[in-house]
Amino acid sequence: MFNVTRYATAAQSIIEAGRFLYDRGWSPATSSNYSARIDADHVAITVSGRHKGQLGAGDVMVVDLHGQAVQSDCRSSAETLLHTVIYQLYPEVGAVLHTHSVKATVLSRLIPAGQALELEGYELQKAFSGVQTHEGKLIVPVFDNTQDIPALAEETRDWFARHPEQPGYLIRGHGLYTWGRTMADCLRHIEAFEFLFECELETMRVRP
Amino acid sequence: MFNVTRYATAAQSIIEAGRFLYDRGWSPATSSNYSARIDADHVAITVSGRHKGQLGAGDVMVVDLHGQAVQSDCRSSAETLLHTVIYQLYPEVGAVLHTHSVKATVLSRLIPAGQALELEGYELQKAFSGVQTHEGKLIVPVFDNTQDIPALAEETRDWFARHPEQPGYLIRGHGLYTWGRTMADCLRHIEAFEFLFECELETMRVRP
Amino acid sequence: MFNVTRYATAAQSIIEAGRFLYDRGWSPATSSNYSARIDADHVAITVSGRHKGQLGAGDVMVVDLHGQAVQSDCRSSAETLLHTVIYQLYPEVGAVLHTHSVKATVLSRLIPAGQALELEGYELQKAFSGVQTHEGKLIVPVFDNTQDIPALAEETRDWFARHPEQPGYLIRGHGLYTWGRTMADCLRHIEAFEFLFECELETMRVRP
Amino acid sequence: MFNVTRYATAAQSIIEAGRFLYDRGWSPATSSNYSARIDADHVAITVSGRHKGQLGAGDVMVVDLHGQAVQSDCRSSAETLLHTVIYQLYPEVGAVLHTHSVKATVLSRLIPAGQALELEGYELQKAFSGVQTHEGKLIVPVFDNTQDIPALAEETRDWFARHPEQPGYLIRGHGLYTWGRTMADCLRHIEAFEFLFECELETMRVRP
Repeated sequence: MFNVTRYATAAQSIIEAGRFLYDRGWSPATSSNYSARIDADHVAITVSGRHKGQLGAGDVMVVDLHGQAVQSDCRSSAETLLHTVIYQLYPEVGAVLHTHSVKATVLSRLIPAGQALELEGYELQKAFSGVQTHEGKLIVPVFDNTQDIPALAEETRDWFARHPEQPGYLIRGHGLYTWGRTMADCLRHIEAFEFLFECELETMRVRP
Repeated sequence: MFNVTRYATAAQSIIEAGRFLYDRGWSPATSSNYSARIDADHVAITVSGRHKGQLGAGDVMVVDLHGQAVQSDCRSSAETLLHTVIYQLYPEVGAVLHTHSVKATVLSRLIPAGQALELEGYELQKAFSGVQTHEGKLIVPVFDNTQDIPALAEETRDWFARHPEQPGYLIRGHGLYTWGRTMADCLRHIEAFEFLFECELETMRVRP
Repeated sequence: MFNVTRYATAAQSIIEAGRFLYDRGWSPATSSNYSARIDADHVAITVSGRHKGQLGAGDVMVVDLHGQAVQSDCRSSAETLLHTVIYQLYPEVGAVLHTHSVKATVLSRLIPAGQALELEGYELQKAFSGVQTHEGKLIVPVFDNTQDIPALAEETRDWFARHPEQPGYLIRGHGLYTWGRTMADCLRHIEAFEFLFECELETMRVRP
Repeated sequence: MFNVTRYATAAQSIIEAGRFLYDRGWSPATSSNYSARIDADHVAITVSGRHKGQLGAGDVMVVDLHGQAVQSDCRSSAETLLHTVIYQLYPEVGAVLHTHSVKATVLSRLIPAGQALELEGYELQKAFSGVQTHEGKLIVPVFDNTQDIPALAEETRDWFARHPEQPGYLIRGHGLYTWGRTMADCLRHIEAFEFLFECELETMRVRP
């Protein structure tokens, strides 16, 4: 059983994140899904198929860390396991956001299969928790899109078990996953990733 | 005779859609026209030439499914027949939106004559009603622009009679038509199309 | 002497236009100047150097059709003569807007010296007053930028005396001038020009 | 000791600037830092790491012209010395803004090492204080990014001692510094720089 006040707080942070992300154009057309940790065993997560700029009290449900609905008849996204894997891997993570921006979609399709997006020399890399300098390298793996979510969940588990310091990943033609200790940290990571994706695309336009 | 409350509800959905679409820049300079079904024989539709971000009670009229004004001295768009053909073809359709975005305009001019825009591998294809996977192919026909609307109406009737599962089309140098069961479905389709058009153009910039 | 209520109405239309145009990013950094006709001999016009998104009652003055300040110690833009030439040429014109968008600036620098921008095949050409079809050609002359405004004013007078049906012009590296019977018409022309400039630049990016 | 009312006024101008700059996307993900002069020896400046669109009373502190915190336990940005150098060099300067836009970041990485960005022929150059014509040349030096801020501070001191008429500079992959007599002047400079950066990038896209 989970604490109701913690659920309500988590749900509110998701609702507010949705308004922000939809307004930026990063969660169009009922795409995306968002979650926030309630406790060691429970996560608040968006109900599948809702308008992310208009989330209300009935649009956030609870799942356990295996992705099973708790005290609810609603259905969460098929991608729920991609969230729960992250909460399992990182006990300190409090929020996971998945967005579908034009930049993430286009960039993920332009990167050759088998390659990661590598970012360096950007001051904004310091927006990621724990990064103190622009001189390091940010590595963003790009997984192929699939409708087989359990298989993709295991792929991400394996990759991040080996690269625990990296803050997010792309799915090809699909979108971005990132996370943070708090929802504010996670939103900062989204902003930083979107900034860097736009920088990369702007550069590729001039120097294809 | 049509039910007045159904007209008022349809008109309100059109007014709100206009504010949204104008704010996005998809209906500039009094362009575009929108409609919503009242019943099997009547459709609410924007009066010609109005500012789409400032629609009011007097800016939505009623036409029958042949495009004739009903209980009104106002004139609807010359393109009214492009709306009524869709309501005739699809009895379940409740709303038709026609927008004029920069992306739709440019992309429709870049596609060679006689070719359709084909979209695949985008997760956001699932935003279209009935689509369950990114693995299918979305086909968007591009019709040549013309001031002979009855002829164009028949062209669209023929094409969609043969491709009833496709959710919209482009007119070259002009804009997008799409539809849905409800106004919310139709707006979701607009958002998804605009997203995909922007992805295609972004990609063409980098890989012309 | 001019009618005070007509001045106040003209000034209000300028203040509201400024908020709209600044919000779109088309009048940044105190650039641009706007005017509206009061009567056959007087024009309300922005005082030089004001923030166009924050215009207030003290930021609109009166000039005669020779550009001389009337009942005012304020100074209007050095470009005032570019406005008054249009009011002299077209007795039916009620508003003139000059904006500085990125698109107008870039496009005007990309067009070879001595050439005009020619636009055709765009449905949105119908947004210009008097245009009934997308099949005509919109010709937008590009004048070289200069600090000698009286000379430029005469250049524009000559060109538009010969092309009275064209609705606006560009100054290279500088911006757009357009006009209309009412402020609403003039704003519609701005929106249509900006739309078309963006279409042209988007196309040049893909097909340089 | 500094005058408290002057501190409060300076802090308020910083808070309002932050809302504007964050909304434009020029200070994402807690990046950027802003300052305003209190008197000959004191400067109000943002506390390190705060959300620039949500600055409040507790997010602006005081430093002296050597960058040392005054009457505060807070920590200002590591880049504080880049601000104080400007206040030392220019006694008339009242505000310094440092932003991190996509355009500034990308452009600063595209300019070859050792070269400055040179801008000419743009009417908007007149938005910079003291510039009367578009015919001059605006020179924007690009310094290499570094975590050694005292060294970079001395580099900027040397360059601007030799070029006191230039209004700002870029740091590669990092962002823009500019200043003005008042916060309004400084914000006008930011708008003008961002406009010009966007023009340059738009042009490079078409003519790489």
